[in-house]
Amino acid sequence: MGKVIDRLEKLARAGLPVAAVRTFGDEAALRAGLGAHEQGVSLRYEGARLRAASPLNVLDSPLGLGLDVALDAQKQALERARLLGLADVLPGPDAITGPNSNLSSNSSSGDGRTAAVRWIVQDMPSATLVEVDSRDAATGAAMGDQLVADAEAALGQPLKLTIAEGIIFDVEPLNLGSQAKFAALVDMVETGRLSPDEGLGLILASDLEELLHPRLASGGENLTIARGINASPGAVAGRIYFSARDAIDVAQTSGAGPVLLVRKETTPEDIRAITVAAGVVTRAGGMTSHAAVIARGLGKPCVVGVREMDVDPEARTLRIGEQLFYEGDWLTIDGSSGLVLPGRVETQEPNLSEAFDKIMSWCDATRSMGVLANAETVAEVELALRFGAEGIGLCRTEHMFLDAERLGDVQKMILAETIEAREAVLKELEPLVQAEFLRLLLVLQGKPVAVRLLDPPLHEFLPTESGEIEYLAETTGLGLLRVQRRLEALREANPMMGLRGCRLGIMFPEIYESQVRALVAACRQARKQGVEPRVDIMLPLISSASEVTILRDRLEPITAEDSRQAIGIGAMIETPRACLRAEEIARGCDFFSFGTNDLTQLAFGLSRDDAGTFMPEYRNLGLLAYNPFRVLDDQGVGELLAIAVERGRLTREDMPMSLCGEQGAEPESVRLAHALGFNSVSCSPYRVPIARLAAAQAALKNIKGTTCP
Amino acid sequence: MGKVIDRLEKLARAGLPVAAVRTFGDEAALRAGLGAHEQGVSLRYEGARLRAASPLNVLDSPLGLGLDVALDAQKQALERARLLGLADVLPGPDAITGPNSNLSSNSSSGDGRTAAVRWIVQDMPSATLVEVDSRDAATGAAMGDQLVADAEAALGQPLKLTIAEGIIFDVEPLNLGSQAKFAALVDMVETGRLSPDEGLGLILASDLEELLHPRLASGGENLTIARGINASPGAVAGRIYFSARDAIDVAQTSGAGPVLLVRKETTPEDIRAITVAAGVVTRAGGMTSHAAVIARGLGKPCVVGVREMDVDPEARTLRIGEQLFYEGDWLTIDGSSGLVLPGRVETQEPNLSEAFDKIMSWCDATRSMGVLANAETVAEVELALRFGAEGIGLCRTEHMFLDAERLGDVQKMILAETIEAREAVLKELEPLVQAEFLRLLLVLQGKPVAVRLLDPPLHEFLPTESGEIEYLAETTGLGLLRVQRRLEALREANPMMGLRGCRLGIMFPEIYESQVRALVAACRQARKQGVEPRVDIMLPLISSASEVTILRDRLEPITAEDSRQAIGIGAMIETPRACLRAEEIARGCDFFSFGTNDLTQLAFGLSRDDAGTFMPEYRNLGLLAYNPFRVLDDQGVGELLAIAVERGRLTREDMPMSLCGEQGAEPESVRLAHALGFNSVSCSPYRVPIARLAAAQAALKNIKGTTCP
Repeated sequence: MGKVIDRLEKLARAGLPVAAVRTFGDEAALRAGLGAHEQGVSLRYEGARLRAASPLNVLDSPLGLGLDVALDAQKQALERARLLGLADVLPGPDAITGPNSNLSSNSSSGDGRTAAVRWIVQDMPSATLVEVDSRDAATGAAMGDQLVADAEAALGQPLKLTIAEGIIFDVEPLNLGSQAKFAALVDMVETGRLSPDEGLGLILASDLEELLHPRLASGGENLTIARGINASPGAVAGRIYFSARDAIDVAQTSGAGPVLLVRKETTPEDIRAITVAAGVVTRAGGMTSHAAVIARGLGKPCVVGVREMDVDPEARTLRIGEQLFYEGDWLTIDGSSGLVLPGRVETQEPNLSEAFDKIMSWCDATRSMGVLANAETVAEVELALRFGAEGIGLCRTEHMFLDAERLGDVQKMILAETIEAREAVLKELEPLVQAEFLRLLLVLQGKPVAVRLLDPPLHEFLPTESGEIEYLAETTGLGLLRVQRRLEALREANPMMGLRGCRLGIMFPEIYESQVRALVAACRQARKQGVEPRVDIMLPLISSASEVTILRDRLEPITAEDSRQAIGIGAMIETPRACLRAEEIARGCDFFSFGTNDLTQLAFGLSRDDAGTFMPEYRNLGLLAYNPFRVLDDQGVGELLAIAVERGRLTREDMPMSLCGEQGAEPESVRLAHALGFNSVSCSPYRVPIARLAAAQAALKNIKGTTCP
Repeated sequence: MGKVIDRLEKLARAGLPVAAVRTFGDEAALRAGLGAHEQGVSLRYEGARLRAASPLNVLDSPLGLGLDVALDAQKQALERARLLGLADVLPGPDAITGPNSNLSSNSSSGDGRTAAVRWIVQDMPSATLVEVDSRDAATGAAMGDQLVADAEAALGQPLKLTIAEGIIFDVEPLNLGSQAKFAALVDMVETGRLSPDEGLGLILASDLEELLHPRLASGGENLTIARGINASPGAVAGRIYFSARDAIDVAQTSGAGPVLLVRKETTPEDIRAITVAAGVVTRAGGMTSHAAVIARGLGKPCVVGVREMDVDPEARTLRIGEQLFYEGDWLTIDGSSGLVLPGRVETQEPNLSEAFDKIMSWCDATRSMGVLANAETVAEVELALRFGAEGIGLCRTEHMFLDAERLGDVQKMILAETIEAREAVLKELEPLVQAEFLRLLLVLQGKPVAVRLLDPPLHEFLPTESGEIEYLAETTGLGLLRVQRRLEALREANPMMGLRGCRLGIMFPEIYESQVRALVAACRQARKQGVEPRVDIMLPLISSASEVTILRDRLEPITAEDSRQAIGIGAMIETPRACLRAEEIARGCDFFSFGTNDLTQLAFGLSRDDAGTFMPEYRNLGLLAYNPFRVLDDQGVGELLAIAVERGRLTREDMPMSLCGEQGAEPESVRLAHALGFNSVSCSPYRVPIARLAAAQAALKNIKGTTCP
């Protein structure tokens, strides 16, 4: 956002009345540059607020402060600012040499980016300084004063100004809440003081983040019984459980309702539980505690540091003040505000303002990449569309198999010992899967959807607890011994790299064939209901061209049955080898979809499920600048993507490329995808607006070569 | 080995008497080219033996056969040959056009590689044809006849000749046993009929393979009680177990002795058991059955298809004829000959001939790459040196921790909840580890050794069975609950990509530091005993330069303590990202060592432990030309290697590069390593001679651009 000196300079250049300022590169220059009798001036270092300036009176007097005293006061202020992360170095010889004696000089450091820290001597007004905001902090409405409005127009953003006698002494950006910021930006653009591009450049992903999560319904906050740190945004109600195991068990029981993990503090053992829980609340911890970091990464609401909570995992109770909660009781948390509320408090989906819609429409007009969503249920798809997704970039099909009403059949299918038995069960499942596909197609109303055929290893569908295994043995009539033997046979040392992805489809052709048959039938029905579906099929975990060929050969006869339906078949590029062999693989593909989660895991040899045990220490030691599962690793994974895009397009110049990992809405990653020539990104529904913004900013950067704040 | 026609042509060119031959590209050419009255000639197609030629008499007579009859007989012979895999296509228009009417014509297909199938018409002798071998089949000694010797000299290899009246009618390579073949080659080289390079070009890896494994002690075969198919070479005695679980349990119990897995047939569930067993014997199966393929891959002796075996896994008995064996009884198998013997029959290490030694010395004089061994015990290191390893390229240190006398302490160390407790146990372990290092250094007598710091995840050192867990809880005094909690915390979803490799060293600095301290102390002691050690340290599973930096910063002060010891520190390049970031990583490295097992796993996203469930089907479907864990995948993994070598040498032009995966002795992979500019390969001790040969052949190829047979 530049330095105050640069902002003042800009205002002066725009013809506005600005108090005279002199700057000095170091203490020596300051001492040399000050007159013998300076009065009515103040001293401060660049980077701090003017209000922290020290009155300076070179001739010691009872009223003023001598230079040494003023310097000392400033150094102390600098130290305090430093502790708050507001300033870095003292002005000194390393910083800049030679003073810029006044605003009109041609300062070589005028762009506010290369300027070093300097000492600033400014005239002090005789009248009282008044602080004025250019916008109403709550709504973003303009304040109307002409000088303020002119200053805002000159700097292109809402401002906090310090004024005396019609002269501007200080100016800094006004920090507004997201809604107010959006309203202000829209107003400035509509009144012609800002171009839409400039407006977009001022929005941060974090401005959107807080808007896009469910909130407590109006008045809900009145029920608050405890407060903690708002570690990860969103409000959610769930049934409380006190151990990772219990949380996982219940979360995986369909119909059990959302689970809220309640812990004194979480450890790496809890990661899987956090993954399946709807939210997390802990007694200990701060913004960077384990629970907070993991929950933010996963986009789960989280409140930490709730000291009023008394958690007893042995007794499985939670006491807050007078209230005692037992395992399974409802509790509500709001990760945006850090509130804890008893029972099942109503939450509501974000209510987005008109200004938000306008800004999103600028984004859509600006960006060149498509923005799709990773979604697979009707509710998720509806949410994604409401947030402006242009379609579904990743529709995982395993949830159709994990659904409670179907899981029993799926388990029977997996335990089947012959193709015939498996086909028989698949035949029963097919109409259910087809109905599910149809529901999605009808919601999508002709928007595109890329369906990923079954990906996870089959053992993920089978129980692990002995009680459930016995139940399964009973219900399938297979007997315990056979079921156990089959479970043993399916067990894998490293499931992430085992019999999954397209390998499943190759080993059990009947599974993929059944999925594709159901999809083709659903398309036919959708057309009967007046919807022209647009469907692609994604083959997961491809590592060689031959895998695409064999699956295409098997599946194309099924998609071809319906001559009106042009279903594309593409590879998911998520192994390093697929990136390297992209030219060959492209020959059998209508498109590429990059699964950057798996690609990151394989490039680093890093299991996302297991990285929790050492990732925090890696971050502490500075071994990783960021978590590569949140922000695309532009050095390793990024090069693999670049290779794959380039080689894929050697085969087909206009090969559509999409990115559908968790990084699909993270601004730096979106920028990288844009730079690499991706056609679209796909992300979780809540993050679609962030991706739309990031894609627009990436396009702006590309067009202008400027930097976003 | 070329075609018979080319061999005859070569002999004719060398001035030897050869029967006249005419060749025809297809049937039409044959019919057009035959004279009106052909007698005393024979017809056959290229590729078959002359003995299978049909007498041809164009003028039908009671003695001769007409062309149609002769063609028919040949086509039938071709069909039979085809079924045996000896010939492929019929001569025809697609094959070659226009006959080569005599041997002296400038045949464009004379190199025996591009020649298509042709019809051959040859004069038939009036005298009886006699078959002569140029060498004694058992010893490889020359036969002495001048014509035969001249023919051998002209073709540069032992031959089987068909001669009549001093004229050569047919010639084919003589298939000798390995020992005889080596004797013959050495004789031919020493008598000046073959250059050493030509001699090396004639040796196959499989010639060495059968020589390099333990054999039954002389007379042992007399004890044979059953015979099967020799599926994987080597003789071994072991205690028999009938289930994968039992085999694994016993094999992991130290002091239990070698385990022999006895099964009706094996399935993917048995892979882990085969890995830990000393050998495998199955009742069912052939050369390509599961047990055979896996055992060969792992280099374990294996006999399959032993029909006389009656295996009862429930009763845990094995009956062969009258003899009944119980679980735990000793049995001996010889995978080189397919024999099964009762009890613990003596085996002996291979007794290598003088000819073998000579050939190996040619290899060593020819090759440019170093050949080292993967070895970690004194016995393995001794074996490796006996087989000509120049040092140890991969010394895994986990075995020092898995050793029975130390395992208890190691488990205590892992379960320790504080650094102090861990350091205390490490302090106790250190002298034991140091003594082990010293033993290795003394055996090595100054030959280099690259020590890989601890790599496997810690949970691999902990028990999984409840009985052992209870025992551990008792002996450590930690109590069952704490031990279980610790086990649960260490459990990983994908251990291959979890907290292992350099991540261990970063998370638990005290472990690597203790290892390095022990190593430095061992070096000091070795010097006192007159041995000047050459030691390198390898950091496993590096994925970024910062990991090397932090470990180097921690370990260098320890290695520097001993000023006389220059211990190099290098990265194991085994993640795709490390290959891409090799330029940076190289800055902190004295050398690169490529772990191609892990690199292959990560490039494909393919867990070696789990691939058994689908790899056979992948091979069946033609999706994989070969198993990439045996033969380096030159397309994907190979490119990653090429990138890493190139970028590593951008930083340091002469950066030593070694390859230490299982592919380190596989000829194609060695050739690739040579072509990529690797300095050395490292493989299991038994395969060192194969690697020496492959490295020499690779160098020859490089020098001459010729192809090995």
